[in-house]
Amino acid sequence: MTSHGLTRFSINQMTVKKLSLPELAEACARVGVGQVGLWREPVQEYGVESAAKLMRDAGLAVTTLCRGGFLTDIDAHARVAAVDDNKRAVDEAAVLGTDTLVLVSGGLPAGSRDLTGARERIADALAELGPYAADRGVRLAIEPLHPMYAADRCVVSTLKQANDLAERFPADQVGVCVDTYHVWWDDTAPAELARAGAHGRLHAFQLADWVTPLPEGVLTGRGQLGDGSVDLAAWCGLARDAGHTGPIEVELFNAGLWARDGGEVLAETAERYLRHTT
Amino acid sequence: MTSHGLTRFSINQMTVKKLSLPELAEACARVGVGQVGLWREPVQEYGVESAAKLMRDAGLAVTTLCRGGFLTDIDAHARVAAVDDNKRAVDEAAVLGTDTLVLVSGGLPAGSRDLTGARERIADALAELGPYAADRGVRLAIEPLHPMYAADRCVVSTLKQANDLAERFPADQVGVCVDTYHVWWDDTAPAELARAGAHGRLHAFQLADWVTPLPEGVLTGRGQLGDGSVDLAAWCGLARDAGHTGPIEVELFNAGLWARDGGEVLAETAERYLRHTT
Repeated sequence: MTSHGLTRFSINQMTVKKLSLPELAEACARVGVGQVGLWREPVQEYGVESAAKLMRDAGLAVTTLCRGGFLTDIDAHARVAAVDDNKRAVDEAAVLGTDTLVLVSGGLPAGSRDLTGARERIADALAELGPYAADRGVRLAIEPLHPMYAADRCVVSTLKQANDLAERFPADQVGVCVDTYHVWWDDTAPAELARAGAHGRLHAFQLADWVTPLPEGVLTGRGQLGDGSVDLAAWCGLARDAGHTGPIEVELFNAGLWARDGGEVLAETAERYLRHTT
Repeated sequence: MTSHGLTRFSINQMTVKKLSLPELAEACARVGVGQVGLWREPVQEYGVESAAKLMRDAGLAVTTLCRGGFLTDIDAHARVAAVDDNKRAVDEAAVLGTDTLVLVSGGLPAGSRDLTGARERIADALAELGPYAADRGVRLAIEPLHPMYAADRCVVSTLKQANDLAERFPADQVGVCVDTYHVWWDDTAPAELARAGAHGRLHAFQLADWVTPLPEGVLTGRGQLGDGSVDLAAWCGLARDAGHTGPIEVELFNAGLWARDGGEVLAETAERYLRHTT
């Protein structure tokens, strides 16, 4: 049973990554969480069909599958392999019953300094993946990542870039995923959030806080809600104003949280969500 | 004597921070470098007048003084102290004979999540500092810092924000400092570079490369020219197209470079500059 106030809350599996899928389902039942965002690797390990059944039996809705993408390769073989892998990700999303596959677009290929070219290759791949996904009831959600990942993970660094890219395709094929961690610093992001909403492309909305100092490699330092610099209530208000009525997912890559008991972290995250988003 | 090809090159003192000011002057003479960017702390330690004389005697031009700024405090006493300190920085710049004081604007005050308010307080301070600086022949150069510093060092994260802020004041009072390390990822930065040039506000232009993985705290991982993802020649071309004919300063916060012999690093940096900027 979903707790009052947590109706729109979704826990991204990465926040409590030590939990197995059955443990995640149990913890969600205990805390009163009715929605989860899943990741491909643990789902594949458990078995995609089995994971889908587990979620269905637990009454858990899958809000997103993370993640496809990495579409910036230059080499033709690597590009074909990447598109094939993204099609498998779409298939997995369809089996899991989620309508949203989050894309992390990919960084600069080794030795390349051509951001513009890399961004254009993403568009090329989306032209093939978009129809494939829509045919299976899955929308691709381009997630702009913080500019500190531009070289090695994602050349789409702003919500404006993500919107520009998405709008080259129909909205039921390609939209955006907005995570406060990546866009909180950007004074153009509020207008771009409204733009995404107005065009029916705000396919996923995620929360994480920004805390410093950043850890080496800057991957595992996302802050628990309320611990950092992001005005989460304001961002939730902007998403609401943009017409977003869907899930609000919390995805925290955080070495400190990962070291703790997953059930405890889930309960804490739900409590922080209630405290800081309204 | 300045070497052929290094006429516009300036070495920022931070790149070779182990060198004392006399050692820096000697190393510049050996390598054929005629311009330096200095930092307040080592200059104060050596004595501002003495440093100015040392540079003059060595025939070294001081291209910038780093740095003023940190103007985002809310507390009235802290704000007055910050403005006073920035006036001293202007005075030091004037003594050193440089026309440019670089500003790192400051991050969010402890407990604050109000980026807009912080940016507005910078403008308030500039209204007082701008005329003070111009009266002494010094221009303030707002340096947008990479968005990964938005919380703890600088709420001015894009060149557009820096231009917007600068244009509220006369160009002989306030302009911008563009460092490739901070703006390389931003597809709106080339147009903003042109805008700064067109308005006579491109007061400083600095180079550093972007390398990954980022170190803990993300302060000391700036790449040696040519080691990373930044198309330095393209950025120099953009600066040239923007009308920039002044110094091109290389400022590398890099723990690996700091561990090496400063003279050797200076020679390497000059060589990399020649190789990667044309």
